Amino acid sequence: MRKHNFGAGPGVLPEAAIKKTQESLFDFNNSGMGVMEISHRSKDFDAVLQKAKSLVKELLHVPDTHEVLFLQGGASTQFAMVPMNFLKKKAAYIDQGAWSNKAIKEAKLFGEVEVIASSKDKNYSYQPKGYTIPADCDYLHICSNETIHGTQVKNFPASSIPVICDMSSDIFSRPVDVSKFDLIYAGAQKNMGPSGVTLAIIKKDIVGKSERVMPTMLNYKTHLENDSLYNTPPVIAILVCMHVLEWLKSIGGVEAMQKINQQKFDMFYNEVDSNPLFTGTAAAEDRSPMNACFLLKDASMDEAFLAKAKEAGIVGIKGHRSVGGFRASMYNALPVESVKVLVQVMKDFAKANG
Amino acid sequence: MRKHNFGAGPGVLPEAAIKKTQESLFDFNNSGMGVMEISHRSKDFDAVLQKAKSLVKELLHVPDTHEVLFLQGGASTQFAMVPMNFLKKKAAYIDQGAWSNKAIKEAKLFGEVEVIASSKDKNYSYQPKGYTIPADCDYLHICSNETIHGTQVKNFPASSIPVICDMSSDIFSRPVDVSKFDLIYAGAQKNMGPSGVTLAIIKKDIVGKSERVMPTMLNYKTHLENDSLYNTPPVIAILVCMHVLEWLKSIGGVEAMQKINQQKFDMFYNEVDSNPLFTGTAAAEDRSPMNACFLLKDASMDEAFLAKAKEAGIVGIKGHRSVGGFRASMYNALPVESVKVLVQVMKDFAKANG
Repeated sequence: MRKHNFGAGPGVLPEAAIKKTQESLFDFNNSGMGVMEISHRSKDFDAVLQKAKSLVKELLHVPDTHEVLFLQGGASTQFAMVPMNFLKKKAAYIDQGAWSNKAIKEAKLFGEVEVIASSKDKNYSYQPKGYTIPADCDYLHICSNETIHGTQVKNFPASSIPVICDMSSDIFSRPVDVSKFDLIYAGAQKNMGPSGVTLAIIKKDIVGKSERVMPTMLNYKTHLENDSLYNTPPVIAILVCMHVLEWLKSIGGVEAMQKINQQKFDMFYNEVDSNPLFTGTAAAEDRSPMNACFLLKDASMDEAFLAKAKEAGIVGIKGHRSVGGFRASMYNALPVESVKVLVQVMKDFAKANG
Repeated sequence: MRKHNFGAGPGVLPEAAIKKTQESLFDFNNSGMGVMEISHRSKDFDAVLQKAKSLVKELLHVPDTHEVLFLQGGASTQFAMVPMNFLKKKAAYIDQGAWSNKAIKEAKLFGEVEVIASSKDKNYSYQPKGYTIPADCDYLHICSNETIHGTQVKNFPASSIPVICDMSSDIFSRPVDVSKFDLIYAGAQKNMGPSGVTLAIIKKDIVGKSERVMPTMLNYKTHLENDSLYNTPPVIAILVCMHVLEWLKSIGGVEAMQKINQQKFDMFYNEVDSNPLFTGTAAAEDRSPMNACFLLKDASMDEAFLAKAKEAGIVGIKGHRSVGGFRASMYNALPVESVKVLVQVMKDFAKANG
């Protein structure tokens, strides 16, 4: 039996995508070779890459001004690539939590950073709002969803400067107007595929303008000009992404997915808000449908609750050490049924201990 | 039926490793989750990472002075990481072919490069020898096997300065004295696993001495201090590597592998040297057992030969555009039987067209 996998990432994948990947490993497309054994310059792999790219474009309605890249190194490498490619004098960052903090730290290596808003005062339990974006900055960096703190940006700010967004933990979970971003990046391992591949959706005309000396592999221009094939790409990871995106399309795309995610969100937070033993840690208006952080008001019950959850086949709900308590990550591929099971465990736990 | 896969990389993998990977995708270790869906901080993945590391150490007899890292970005990223971390004033490079050329080009972005030997005069058909290694350089960079030109370094030079070696296309194919290298790196997709992970075997005491400002992800120190878990590693790629290395150990390790590779090498080159229609392009003493480049003396027969090879289930032998003709890559996982089939096709072709 498959577990109810609430892990924060690498996270649960659609069963259909896993099964199709399994079939490709030994003999891909009747080629007599497994998908990990074919040339990245072959027709068979080119079909995978082009399909994955076109699915990203279709599902997110990516305009012709933008291109889709598959990179390596995770969001952590993007934290450096962004300032190396785009920070000339000064960049504006929003300090929204653990991940934006890492992005800020990295950007400071390469230029001046102005932190224009922060929610550090309340341990990142809310999303900063109402800030002014300085017109003299090269770009604004924002993180759409803070995995660790369970908050999400509901409305992206209007900006006169380019906006660069880390969407690692909520990409493909809701519609997004790609035209408003000069660069969107995301490690794949939450809503798109396995770890080992990073998606970038980049406005083509911003690329190649930096005069900074930088590694060829860290220049977006390299990958844009070579259609993500400058060097050998992570073939198997891109194949899995393709299958995950096919699954997403098959259930109705991002718009349908958002409704299902809302259903899971409502089900879960209705329980947190009505159950006398639990409380959510994120400000109500900023709660993320992807990562829900919650506490037992009496932390001495933590182990008992975890044991009950485990009995029900639930895994991955221990909270991050910086927040404590619990975290239910409800990524796209997490079935509604899994949330039902978690809610029932919470109800039963309250009955037994209330 | 599986093809006889002579592709230059990503290349053929051991069937046993593929089948074990298949089994792990849906339910890994009876965890109720697939291996791509488990946390990289979980016990289950830690066991994979530690096993893969210890197999590298065991198979290559890695001394305690060195550590094993699993990175992302391929050898192309190493081309930049090497000079960023170790080039202070000047580095010595050997110009052995297409790949060392890329390494040289990248190093020049970060400091002075002295090309101390080259085989460019004969289109890289031999390995430079008898050069002097300048004592005032920070390191010597050498490539152990030139995938495109089919040549291999048989004896590594004695050196008073640190030696850094790109072993992407022949690592694990023969014993190597790791203690003589300060850094060995290799993209996995030839002899170790799928594309998407890069092996580094690094002498611990050379790390963290650079004063250069560099991306955190491009600093070997980051990965050494975090045991390759600074950020989410390419989980599935590392799992496949573990299975490939288990297979290598099961057949007797690198020493046994070398004998099998020698057998394939002898079988193939005996045919090239005795068959009147064919000729090898690499200098005899520098021929690589991993990549054998060969030509039909009459290039107008190329298509006919390729067609015969295809009929016999052979794939991936078209030569690189810079060398022309054919290339038979005979990586570790290529069965002896596949070489027998290729040799028979060459014999039959000579009989029919001789």
